Amino acid sequence: MRKDAQTSRSALLDVLMRRHAERRPIWLMRQAGRYLPEYRAVREKAGSFLDLCYNPELAAEVTVQPLRRYDLDAAILFSDILVVPHAMGLPLKFEEGEGPVLQTVRSSEEVAALKPVAQSYEVKQVCRTVSLTRSLLGPGKALIGFCGAPWTVASYMIAGGSSDRVVAKVAAYQRQPWFCELITRLVVESVDYLCAQADAGAQALQIFDSWAGDLIDSELEEFVLKPIAEIVEGVGKCHPGLPVIVFARGIGVHQKRAAALPGASAVGIETEFDLSLLPKDIVVQGNLDPVALIAGEDVARREVHRICASVDRQRHIFNLGHGIRVGTDPAVVGAVVDAVRRFDG
Amino acid sequence: MRKDAQTSRSALLDVLMRRHAERRPIWLMRQAGRYLPEYRAVREKAGSFLDLCYNPELAAEVTVQPLRRYDLDAAILFSDILVVPHAMGLPLKFEEGEGPVLQTVRSSEEVAALKPVAQSYEVKQVCRTVSLTRSLLGPGKALIGFCGAPWTVASYMIAGGSSDRVVAKVAAYQRQPWFCELITRLVVESVDYLCAQADAGAQALQIFDSWAGDLIDSELEEFVLKPIAEIVEGVGKCHPGLPVIVFARGIGVHQKRAAALPGASAVGIETEFDLSLLPKDIVVQGNLDPVALIAGEDVARREVHRICASVDRQRHIFNLGHGIRVGTDPAVVGAVVDAVRRFDG
Repeated sequence: MRKDAQTSRSALLDVLMRRHAERRPIWLMRQAGRYLPEYRAVREKAGSFLDLCYNPELAAEVTVQPLRRYDLDAAILFSDILVVPHAMGLPLKFEEGEGPVLQTVRSSEEVAALKPVAQSYEVKQVCRTVSLTRSLLGPGKALIGFCGAPWTVASYMIAGGSSDRVVAKVAAYQRQPWFCELITRLVVESVDYLCAQADAGAQALQIFDSWAGDLIDSELEEFVLKPIAEIVEGVGKCHPGLPVIVFARGIGVHQKRAAALPGASAVGIETEFDLSLLPKDIVVQGNLDPVALIAGEDVARREVHRICASVDRQRHIFNLGHGIRVGTDPAVVGAVVDAVRRFDG
Repeated sequence: MRKDAQTSRSALLDVLMRRHAERRPIWLMRQAGRYLPEYRAVREKAGSFLDLCYNPELAAEVTVQPLRRYDLDAAILFSDILVVPHAMGLPLKFEEGEGPVLQTVRSSEEVAALKPVAQSYEVKQVCRTVSLTRSLLGPGKALIGFCGAPWTVASYMIAGGSSDRVVAKVAAYQRQPWFCELITRLVVESVDYLCAQADAGAQALQIFDSWAGDLIDSELEEFVLKPIAEIVEGVGKCHPGLPVIVFARGIGVHQKRAAALPGASAVGIETEFDLSLLPKDIVVQGNLDPVALIAGEDVARREVHRICASVDRQRHIFNLGHGIRVGTDPAVVGAVVDAVRRFDG
């Protein structure tokens, strides 16, 4: 498996490592998902969403499905950011159409009771998925592992699964000791989780801070940028040189601060921010609007052209600004990949 | 009524008109609302939310309530941005705890069937509220009228009341003729609506584009900035010199483009963007996080200091970045007003 990566250059890794890339790398957030009939078929067979996450054979299968359909440069591990709190011992369920339901954490006692993830069943299964997926991927195709960032994962743990971040924001503003302890614990566990994925064969890692845009000023610094920096540093100690993509969604002009974190290889950029407004010396990932895909091939192609024209392909990883939406026509996804390839000619 | 405004200077109007202001003006979005017990008492008496909107005595009463409690510089008309589609003939209901339910508009025929608002019962009642409120306000207290911006109002009309903007965004991306016609109609009706409020005594106007941050690039230009510019221009024709505040929420760095619209007196800035990142020659309004008020007096005061320190008081209208949240402690609102006054000494 490791041999593939060494003998066949991956455009994704080339751009992340600032080497000359043969083409503009592409992958798409939530590329393995419900918009694909082959995903839905496996999902039905698997049982619940979590059953699928913890079934290495089936999770590896859905991870590689999009690469059979589309000329993508990377697969991203099929999993969920709530695997970490689950592995820390919090009961978790995904209700159909309702989203996750997670036991809440809102005190120092509850933080102290959380378990380390490293030896957990959940993390072991995810790592088996990583290894298996690597063996299924062809040459030039990189495997991306990931975790949620502390702020985003904490906000779900505090809210009990929902994405209402008011209680978490209040705790952040008040610098509640238990909140700070939770962020610190999540840094430690995220490092262990990402290092385990890298040990198992992940060639790049992404840290997803979906709700980073909630926080401003000193809270942005303290609870978004600093914990991410600590994770990047921790991963760098166990896997020096392994690329890490930081996706602090929604922080706009502050993306340059995320890009400047020591060890960050690239920053993911939300749809709502123009790539052209960022410094020209950073590697950016993004930022096609998933809704442009719903609007059909013509709109999607127009937006692909606009984005590709705004950033040099040697420092751009083409992606969406947010995950593919349920109901997206798989043919439009194909048209997007095709449009990126044609743009660079 | 007009005499008050002429004989007693209003800090709000002074800042908006770039005259020397005696103090940093303050008002708060949704300052009249459910967090106030005196509002809830009137609301109970009024019947439904819409009954209250169309009852001039009670609507004027809740409009002035916050000025009895707090040392604010302006009252904002108690109303709702969906008054315009309602006055255009669309059935509208506010379900308790569920938000608005509005008949959808998704075709040229449906746009063509919309009625002009000028002579409607709804607009007449709102204008009676404006006149009555002006007669209740003391010297130095300005009355702000408002409307929703075309993109935001259209997105509710297209979705049928909910704030899911996917169908509207798709129509915008596709430049659907019916969508463009709807935006054009909303410009015309919004001008008439705002001019009617100014005729009735509103001394400043605000255009709320709550979902402006949804659109990017040419769609931002075409469906957010251009329609707002047309409204500002239209209002300028019937009421030359009347200040207009543009609140295109969530457009971040592009706020300077909103500020540059001919006739725009100030721009409202969302919580998520730093006032200090904007050019120093524009009047800005905002941008305290409503969640900071939930976090209590200490946090709220700290944030007041940070914001006030970041912008010269002669070009700053202190406000929130979004509406006051239900459940906010009225005492914390008082502490915020007090902190702004103390900051400027």
